Amino acid sequence: MKIRVVVVGIEGPINLGFIARLVKNFEADELFLVKPVAQVDETALRFAAHARDVLERVVIVESLDDALKDVAVSACTSARVGQKSDVLRHAVTPWELVEMVEGYSSVALVFGRESTGLTREEIAKCDLLVSIPASREYPVLNLSHAVGILLYEMFKKFRLKKSQFRIEPAREENIRVVIKRLECIAERVVKDERLAQVLPAIRHMVVKAGLTAGEASSLSYFLKKLALELGAEECIR
Amino acid sequence: MKIRVVVVGIEGPINLGFIARLVKNFEADELFLVKPVAQVDETALRFAAHARDVLERVVIVESLDDALKDVAVSACTSARVGQKSDVLRHAVTPWELVEMVEGYSSVALVFGRESTGLTREEIAKCDLLVSIPASREYPVLNLSHAVGILLYEMFKKFRLKKSQFRIEPAREENIRVVIKRLECIAERVVKDERLAQVLPAIRHMVVKAGLTAGEASSLSYFLKKLALELGAEECIR
Repeated sequence: MKIRVVVVGIEGPINLGFIARLVKNFEADELFLVKPVAQVDETALRFAAHARDVLERVVIVESLDDALKDVAVSACTSARVGQKSDVLRHAVTPWELVEMVEGYSSVALVFGRESTGLTREEIAKCDLLVSIPASREYPVLNLSHAVGILLYEMFKKFRLKKSQFRIEPAREENIRVVIKRLECIAERVVKDERLAQVLPAIRHMVVKAGLTAGEASSLSYFLKKLALELGAEECIR
Repeated sequence: MKIRVVVVGIEGPINLGFIARLVKNFEADELFLVKPVAQVDETALRFAAHARDVLERVVIVESLDDALKDVAVSACTSARVGQKSDVLRHAVTPWELVEMVEGYSSVALVFGRESTGLTREEIAKCDLLVSIPASREYPVLNLSHAVGILLYEMFKKFRLKKSQFRIEPAREENIRVVIKRLECIAERVVKDERLAQVLPAIRHMVVKAGLTAGEASSLSYFLKKLALELGAEECIR
């Protein structure tokens, strides 16, 4: 899935820099600017931080049509949605969008000017309209924050390898050690009928926590120390 | 669920303004600043746009302990995670976080300085560590964009009323009208055995599309015109 970010008439160099950074943070492939007002100037480069390379290969075009050429599916963004009778303003959510574009080879995400967004004529050129749900009282996000949230949802769906972000989970036997030690200690200190509730509570807690290898190891160590302190050597065998 | 945004040592007034705006966009309740370097100055107020009121009621405190007083659960954020043996750096994702904090009466989301993030001592004060998955090549988001993504996930989980954002869906009978007209037109123009594939394809398309009331109405109108053009009056009865 190739992801192209298209911004129409961007006005501010700070947003331009931030958008370049987000393109790199979330592994979008291309940044297209349609008739930008802002320049790739020192401010833009500064706010791009370590994503200056994105600004160096930005593509500037004269029309939205040019920016949408050769993409398989396009989604325009708007903060002003929901007028009942106006199909042009019927939007999907970001999390619906990523399901809908799955399977296409390329997608363009189209954002409008800071001041006025996209025009009706521009929105009519997209295959879909997407809007980020936000407060009724103040639903209009800053441009670069809208870009960030859309790219975050795309990253989640199309870029994230489970292995890439996942910390190594604890091995089953190490989770069992934590449970055994905790249960053993509970049996030593709870001498009444509440034990029948305590033991499953312990197992539920440990299993639901989805421990990492490091967490299981630290907890086992703690429970060993605790058992020794209690004189409960049988708990660490 | 009360949501408190806590930023430790914020350095830039642009980010401060943007964060205030995001607090309002996503209906967080409070903004706490721990020992801020940036001031609520003209720049901050300008970038807050219509969320100046958030900056007017910002709470400035001397320590992270003060900012975490009286919250039920806290999550620190970090872009540097995953060192195998270091439990302090074992993070959950934003979408895991919102499940984990469900049921608590209040949550603090804690963000660090633009330059260096949170210290190990600060991270150790939180109940959870959360990190936004991003590119291995450049995983460090700008501060305000990280705030935006966390607050967006919180809004999705705890603020969004289905009815608030949902466009009125089409009534079942109006969806049926679209299907009937399309099927009728298909029966008129497809005269071979492919019709057996075309009819279910039509039904699947219309039902999977989850039409809004406005879309269904516009499509019915189009299909009426189309049927008349074809001389297929039986299709619009």
